[in-house]
Amino acid sequence: MEKLILIKVGGKIVEEPASLKQLLTDFAKIEGHKVLVHGGGRSATAMAARLGIESKMVNGRRITDEETLKVVTMVYGGLVNKQIVAGLQALGVNALGLTGADLNYMRSEKRPVKDVDYGFVGDVKEVNASILADLIAKDVVPVLAPLTHDKSGNLLNTNADTIAGEAAKALATYFDVTLMYCFEKKGVLKDENDDDSVIAELTPALFESYVQSGVIQGGMIPKLENAFEALKAGVKKVVITRADLIDKEGGTIIIEL
Amino acid sequence: MEKLILIKVGGKIVEEPASLKQLLTDFAKIEGHKVLVHGGGRSATAMAARLGIESKMVNGRRITDEETLKVVTMVYGGLVNKQIVAGLQALGVNALGLTGADLNYMRSEKRPVKDVDYGFVGDVKEVNASILADLIAKDVVPVLAPLTHDKSGNLLNTNADTIAGEAAKALATYFDVTLMYCFEKKGVLKDENDDDSVIAELTPALFESYVQSGVIQGGMIPKLENAFEALKAGVKKVVITRADLIDKEGGTIIIEL
Repeated sequence: MEKLILIKVGGKIVEEPASLKQLLTDFAKIEGHKVLVHGGGRSATAMAARLGIESKMVNGRRITDEETLKVVTMVYGGLVNKQIVAGLQALGVNALGLTGADLNYMRSEKRPVKDVDYGFVGDVKEVNASILADLIAKDVVPVLAPLTHDKSGNLLNTNADTIAGEAAKALATYFDVTLMYCFEKKGVLKDENDDDSVIAELTPALFESYVQSGVIQGGMIPKLENAFEALKAGVKKVVITRADLIDKEGGTIIIEL
Repeated sequence: MEKLILIKVGGKIVEEPASLKQLLTDFAKIEGHKVLVHGGGRSATAMAARLGIESKMVNGRRITDEETLKVVTMVYGGLVNKQIVAGLQALGVNALGLTGADLNYMRSEKRPVKDVDYGFVGDVKEVNASILADLIAKDVVPVLAPLTHDKSGNLLNTNADTIAGEAAKALATYFDVTLMYCFEKKGVLKDENDDDSVIAELTPALFESYVQSGVIQGGMIPKLENAFEALKAGVKKVVITRADLIDKEGGTIIIEL
C-alpha cells in the first residue's frame, strides 16, 4: 500500500497568519499522499463575540446552539478552510476543502442529551473513505474542516481530533496511514516544565504506567486513548508532535506492542 | 456526449429556508448530470451589517475590501454553500461544495483598478474543468460558490453569473451543456408588467431588435450577451427562467442562429 500522512493541527496555528504560512510551507514540503485536518475554535469564539453570541464551553467542547452552528459553519467551513485551501494551492498543493456533508464523506448523529446538551454536535457514525481515497490517489489533498452532517440536512459541529482519528481509521483500508496530532509541545512530556523531556515511544504498557504515576494526565489521556484505538483499527503509526516539526523526526511515536 | 445541466440561482432563493427547500427538492428531481451555482449577496450584506461593515455596491457589484472579503468567504463559501450541500445530501444528491480554490478549478486575477476600485474581486482567467468532469461522471454534483482564487493565496469575490457562464463553457468540452439562469421572472418578458409575456426564443437578431426597441434593457442586456457568448463557446442551450420552473418546460431559450 502507498503511504498517507494525515495531520491534525489545532486552531491557534491556522488562525495566525505567520504560523499558518509556516505550517502550509512545511506541509507542502511533505512528499506523497497527505490530508490536513484543522480546528478553528479561537476564530469561532472571536466571530461569535463580534456577533454578540456568547461562547459556552463544557469539558473543552463548545455548546452549539443554532446561532453558534451558523458561526462555526461560516468560520470552519468558510473562512479557515478556504484560506488554507487557497494558501496550499499557491504552494502547488491541489487542496480540496471538505466538510462531512461534501461527498457525504463523514456522517454523524446529533449527540444524545445526557448530563449536558451540547446542541448541534455530531458523533461520527460512518466514514465513506472510498471517494476520498480515489481523490487522494489522484494527488488531491483533502483539507478537512471540523464539521459533519447527519444526512438529514443538518450540519453538526465535530471535534477536529475526532475527525482526524475517524478519517485515519477509514483511510487505513486504502493506505499505509500515519496519523500526526500537532499541539504546542514537541511531544508527550515526562516533565511538563521541560520541553525537551519528550517521551520518544509509547506502548500501551508504558502509557498505563505513566498514567498511574501521574506523568500523563488531563486532556492528554483521551488523546492517547484515541491514538491506541486508531492503531487497533489499522492505522500504522500515530505521532504527537509540534506543528513546526511535521516534516522532521521527533515527537512521541505511539505504537501497539 | 452525455448531457449536463448547470443551474445558476440567485441569492434570494437560496437565502430563505422555504424557497431553498423547494429549490433543492426541484433540483434533486432533475435526472442526469448537474451542477448548481449559487449567490448569497443578501446574506453577505446582512452579515456585514451585523459586523458593522458597510456594504458598498457600484453597478450592482460589491466593493470588496479586506474585511468584506472575509465576510463573503464565510457566507458564500461556508454558510450558504454548506447548507445547500447538506440539504442536497439529505435528498440523495452527492453534492460537493467548491470555491475556485478547491481543486484549483477556477483561477482569476484581481480586477485592475480603472474608474472603480472593486477591491478583492476576480476576473476569471482559467477553468480546470477536467477534474470537475471526472467527478461529475461519477455522479458527484458540484455546488459552486461565487468565489475564485488567484493561485497566489488570495480568494477573490466573483459574480455568480460569471462563475456559471465560465464553468458551462469549460464543461462544454466534456458534456452537452444546458446553462440555466434563474431569476424572479418566468423568462425574458416582452412587457415587464405582464408576467406571462415570456419571449419563448431569442436569437441574436431578435435580441438586437428588442434592445433597439427598448423591450430588453438594463441588467438583462449583459446577461443575454453572456448567454450568446456561452453558445459561441460550445454550450448547447441557454435558458432564462424562474427557479420554481427548473424541472419544467418554459422560460426563454437563447439560441444561436
